[in-house]
Amino acid sequence: MPISAIASAREILTRLHDVMASRHTAQAKLNAVVDIIGEALESEVCSIYLLREGLLELFATRGLAQDAVHVTKLAMGEGLVGIIAANVETLNLDEAAAHPDFAYRPETGEERFHSFAGVPIIRKEQAVGVLAVQHADPRRYEDVEIEALQTVAMVLSELIANAGLVDSTGATTARPQSTAAMRIGGFKLVDGMAAGVAVYHQPRISIEHTVAEDTEAERHRVYAAFDKMREQIDRMSNQAEFGVGGEHEEVLATYKMFAYDEGWSRRINEAIDSGLTAEAAIERVQQRTRMRMREIDDPLLRDRMHDLEDLSNRLIRIVSGQLGTAAQLGLRQDSILIARNLGPAELLEYDRRRLKGVVLEEGSLTAHVTIVARAMGVPVLGRVRGVRREVAEGDRLLLDVGEQSLHIRPNAAMEEAFEAKQLITQKRRAAFAKLKAEPPVTRDGQRITLMVNAGLRDDVAALDLTGADGIGLFRTEFQFLVSATLPQRERQQRLYKDVLDAAGDRPVTFRTVDVGGDKSLPYLNHDEEGEEENPAMGWRALRLALDRDGLMKAQARALIEAAAGKTLNVMFPMVSEPWEFEEARALFEAQRAWLAARNRKLPADIRYGAMLEVPALAEVLDMLLPKLDFLSIGTNDLTQFLFAADRAHPKLAMRYDWLSPSILRFVRRVARQCHEANVPVAVCGEMGGRPLEAMALVGLGIERLSITPAAVGPVKAMIRSLDRAALAEQLSVLLAAPPSSLRDSLMAWAGQNGVELV
Amino acid sequence: MPISAIASAREILTRLHDVMASRHTAQAKLNAVVDIIGEALESEVCSIYLLREGLLELFATRGLAQDAVHVTKLAMGEGLVGIIAANVETLNLDEAAAHPDFAYRPETGEERFHSFAGVPIIRKEQAVGVLAVQHADPRRYEDVEIEALQTVAMVLSELIANAGLVDSTGATTARPQSTAAMRIGGFKLVDGMAAGVAVYHQPRISIEHTVAEDTEAERHRVYAAFDKMREQIDRMSNQAEFGVGGEHEEVLATYKMFAYDEGWSRRINEAIDSGLTAEAAIERVQQRTRMRMREIDDPLLRDRMHDLEDLSNRLIRIVSGQLGTAAQLGLRQDSILIARNLGPAELLEYDRRRLKGVVLEEGSLTAHVTIVARAMGVPVLGRVRGVRREVAEGDRLLLDVGEQSLHIRPNAAMEEAFEAKQLITQKRRAAFAKLKAEPPVTRDGQRITLMVNAGLRDDVAALDLTGADGIGLFRTEFQFLVSATLPQRERQQRLYKDVLDAAGDRPVTFRTVDVGGDKSLPYLNHDEEGEEENPAMGWRALRLALDRDGLMKAQARALIEAAAGKTLNVMFPMVSEPWEFEEARALFEAQRAWLAARNRKLPADIRYGAMLEVPALAEVLDMLLPKLDFLSIGTNDLTQFLFAADRAHPKLAMRYDWLSPSILRFVRRVARQCHEANVPVAVCGEMGGRPLEAMALVGLGIERLSITPAAVGPVKAMIRSLDRAALAEQLSVLLAAPPSSLRDSLMAWAGQNGVELV
Repeated sequence: MPISAIASAREILTRLHDVMASRHTAQAKLNAVVDIIGEALESEVCSIYLLREGLLELFATRGLAQDAVHVTKLAMGEGLVGIIAANVETLNLDEAAAHPDFAYRPETGEERFHSFAGVPIIRKEQAVGVLAVQHADPRRYEDVEIEALQTVAMVLSELIANAGLVDSTGATTARPQSTAAMRIGGFKLVDGMAAGVAVYHQPRISIEHTVAEDTEAERHRVYAAFDKMREQIDRMSNQAEFGVGGEHEEVLATYKMFAYDEGWSRRINEAIDSGLTAEAAIERVQQRTRMRMREIDDPLLRDRMHDLEDLSNRLIRIVSGQLGTAAQLGLRQDSILIARNLGPAELLEYDRRRLKGVVLEEGSLTAHVTIVARAMGVPVLGRVRGVRREVAEGDRLLLDVGEQSLHIRPNAAMEEAFEAKQLITQKRRAAFAKLKAEPPVTRDGQRITLMVNAGLRDDVAALDLTGADGIGLFRTEFQFLVSATLPQRERQQRLYKDVLDAAGDRPVTFRTVDVGGDKSLPYLNHDEEGEEENPAMGWRALRLALDRDGLMKAQARALIEAAAGKTLNVMFPMVSEPWEFEEARALFEAQRAWLAARNRKLPADIRYGAMLEVPALAEVLDMLLPKLDFLSIGTNDLTQFLFAADRAHPKLAMRYDWLSPSILRFVRRVARQCHEANVPVAVCGEMGGRPLEAMALVGLGIERLSITPAAVGPVKAMIRSLDRAALAEQLSVLLAAPPSSLRDSLMAWAGQNGVELV
Repeated sequence: MPISAIASAREILTRLHDVMASRHTAQAKLNAVVDIIGEALESEVCSIYLLREGLLELFATRGLAQDAVHVTKLAMGEGLVGIIAANVETLNLDEAAAHPDFAYRPETGEERFHSFAGVPIIRKEQAVGVLAVQHADPRRYEDVEIEALQTVAMVLSELIANAGLVDSTGATTARPQSTAAMRIGGFKLVDGMAAGVAVYHQPRISIEHTVAEDTEAERHRVYAAFDKMREQIDRMSNQAEFGVGGEHEEVLATYKMFAYDEGWSRRINEAIDSGLTAEAAIERVQQRTRMRMREIDDPLLRDRMHDLEDLSNRLIRIVSGQLGTAAQLGLRQDSILIARNLGPAELLEYDRRRLKGVVLEEGSLTAHVTIVARAMGVPVLGRVRGVRREVAEGDRLLLDVGEQSLHIRPNAAMEEAFEAKQLITQKRRAAFAKLKAEPPVTRDGQRITLMVNAGLRDDVAALDLTGADGIGLFRTEFQFLVSATLPQRERQQRLYKDVLDAAGDRPVTFRTVDVGGDKSLPYLNHDEEGEEENPAMGWRALRLALDRDGLMKAQARALIEAAAGKTLNVMFPMVSEPWEFEEARALFEAQRAWLAARNRKLPADIRYGAMLEVPALAEVLDMLLPKLDFLSIGTNDLTQFLFAADRAHPKLAMRYDWLSPSILRFVRRVARQCHEANVPVAVCGEMGGRPLEAMALVGLGIERLSITPAAVGPVKAMIRSLDRAALAEQLSVLLAAPPSSLRDSLMAWAGQNGVELV
């Protein structure tokens, strides 16, 4: 930028500053502004249009007919001014009438002017007006002149907001697309429905002061903010996914590059030199970058720009001292949280009673935040592209993750349909609640053990709420996933003891940590190998725990001490060969012996079990069963390995059915072997939580299910209406010569035999 | 940079240019240079040290005693000058004597001078000398002065090279670390051994002219080069992994960001303003960035800097018009290729007779280049960090992928050990070659069918070389992987016909394309879902082929037409449920009917088979077998799904054994079912290519193996020495109650029974 241009931008700002500080009316100030700009840019015309009652109204002009002021009004998208506001973009034309959107307004007398340049006046990322200059000779305005206009538009935004000149203090009514109800789609991460107002995890900042009082002071504020931001990012990359925002390494790398980029800080400094405050300067540079990038229009670069936007927002938050997340500010009503991404610890900071749902622009099924949200029972819709563009803070939202949709600013019809759907769910829930005290016994007298899955301290409450027989699967890794540092043994022990105490005489089965693979923990100092190509089939769970046994030794101690005087049920995940189970058990027994030698109070009994989720284990079950106290079939992982089909893949999620002959035959074979060896066998996983699937499992001889608490009611209702012996007979016929759809056949059988399915 | 500094750098360069263009001797020119620099930087001392006979010799000085010229000599790493050269780094000290490495040389009379600044004179990334200034008052030189010195050092590098003043035109002898033999490790991608000279896939450029004749012209050259580079990168990101360099999307995103970064191009332009040529300006900016980044020292940024280095080199190659790869220049002797990464098409451009091995700084087991190299039989060592720093073009290299090591500039002992190891391999190979004409019959008279795996046209030659019975697995996806665009049906048909013709009356089994998942093809326009989290268990092979059947229809037509008059054996990969096989066969039959209706000549017979690699299929084999003409067990994928263990993961590769009870029982079960149903069953995959594993398979009843050509000899030798009935008996004992190590037991049995294993 030539020196002269910087100086003139600065000169304009100084003059504007005086105008704004004066005691004139807002209208008088606007009149003064158009004079200053027109003069500085040597433009015959300078006009300001502001949004009022949904229309862009001419508020002040130099050069056009004064009679047109407050008379000329354009709709959003109408004429050049309307286009600028609707698209929030700058136009620079040497021949305005040649533009297809040119709309001539005779009252203005603008036919004499050929060249035209206009910039949007922006508030909360939406146009609230337009600043335009025109000139009789056809000339294109120089880049530096456009930049000066854009800078002035920022200052006007402040003036307008302070004077209350536009429709609303919020931008909600100001943007055309945001007044209308709309629906956007996403990717199902945690099923559920929720209604509430939109709350941004990182609240947006509106810039209150644009013209600097003291340029030197602003410069120092930016320096300090850059330092702080670099520190933050360095810390983030040390903590990886934890605490800060769930950003991926790639995103962090980009953050770093920008944070240390001299070009970026230099441009911000130049903007400060032109007279802006630190906040305004950062925003100004970001606006300019946005415009440049819009021209290049490349998908790869767009991702990077997204990163720079985030970083720019972060810098503004730092410089303005507005650092808190919505969790720190507190939720005041039923809320649906909006974020690009979120860390599991951040999610836990929210008030569970008011947090009804989460909408993420990114997110994945295996991200820690998803795992934790599922445990908390908070619905999450992920990969909602553009949500942060379409949703304003405070918008009413209806989230229906099952339908993979988010309704924004719903109309009455949408609300009604949503409520009706929720009502059905609630009615069902009430019906199931009545079953709480009834035992899960089949019509032909078989008592089924119905347990719940859990992972957080609060989950134990589900035992009382559902009347379940115990916790069949306590996922100990949750404590590890939500923590930024390795949970100390004492903390682990406290959690386990709390859970056992709360469960009372109902049994709890603890599964040792299943981390690694897709659940990596930064503080475990993973390894040199870098990312795994197929993390589900990776170095995880028992594999990692046996190779690096410090973690499991601490956990064994914590579990044994927590269960002093009680029965400790412990099971190992991802057992693939019998020796792995034996090594793990030996590790626990060594800890028991160590504690015994020190006369510590020990559990009355330790029962050891294995998860069967790796297909190979089924082939050598005869070797393992004599050593087991119990076996648990983990259907989630098992079925994805059996079918070599990642359940997170949308194209594969529906391809293979849990009610396939392969899976049912496999489960039957395992159940038979366990019965013959007199080893109790349970099924834990989503499959057992679905009534029809649970029916099939019971029919195959499975007598123990551990399922999500919400499924206890429906599954119990199914069990109490089932003649198990009749189903077993039917199943042996069906599996001997499978029909084309086992699901259809089983569904028909259930219908004919009065089995309650919802 | 202040205007004055630019001007003075430019002034210095203009004066240097005149000196260099003069007809004086090199010594006189150096004398003139020290005067110019000393004067311009107002330094009492300016000296030039050059590398001669391994020592840094004072070649010219202003300010130090002239008697010291050609007398004072410092070793690499000795004194400040030695440190600068050894570390290729700049020093700027206000008190030289305070530096721990300061070495006082009385003959120079330098004790009077306190401040010291020195920069390396660089040639091919190694120091060939040092340019130093000294001053009596303790002062630190300004950044702009250091920059000027660095710029001058670049020019000196040119002068020195032209005058032949240093040891060698190459830099090989100039750097301390490169004279010594060394070994660096990597990651096994394609096994094998190779010896040859190092050849860079993208040859390094040395800059010949540093001072510009015409600054305006240089500026235009850079503009044009930037345009071309952006075009190239845009093209690369459209072609993804293909043709250009195997770069990942992330790397491409960074390339783009830099390519469009105004800061970078601006800095290069400033360097040109200071009087440098385009090449020198690019290199100058890169040097400066390297120095800055060395200070920040952050692992994430380092990766990005790596990208910028590559891009900077690319820009220099473009600007200097030296665009060819080593393949285009032609290999002149046995060579080992060095690259950061490589595309499969690029690899195929090399002369197979002279390309003995490939060493990549990146690379992965599932990259297309690895798959193709394996098919070509070219050993590849991947993830060799720093190889491009340690190896100079023309260095002698010994590559031993099995040992995961690369020996650089080996000494005699290394060469000897390497040769001895190679000799053993060659001897074995000769022994196996004698078996070529002998049939693979067990001692008790069982004829085993031994076939080879193939995927490229040239692979068919392996049939004659090995005496194999046919091609048991022709991987049709290879043609897709090495092509930048979708291979047209005609091209596919030509390949298939060539293969069938070359095979003569030996059978060929074509496997339909297994793409998708970890083998993604950019031209297939994958989908919105983005990268798969577990691609091995992803939407690939038959799944993708049935969902998007255009590809398979074309392939079916191509195969049917190519096999006109012959028997066509076709098999489908990743069959998971019987309906998938049926749909695929129906698709082929529809193509046959279509061709029949048009009176085209059809195959005499089409035999349909399925790959068994998904565990679930084994559970429903009774439903599938009646429909099959043959079954093939794909042990590579099968075993990783059975054990839920990614075979590419270094921590898991050794964890589960192919000779585990699980796998052998699984295979036995499948083999029995096939025998009962009278369906021929083969094993294809690495397992069958290992003599001990192949022995176990034969013992379990497998009578057909399809293996890598190199394994035919060893496996045939095993078969001809095996009493199969005795082994079958032994195996049934071992599998009924498996010992702790099946491998050890089988090995012992083989030893006792005279089975030949290598």
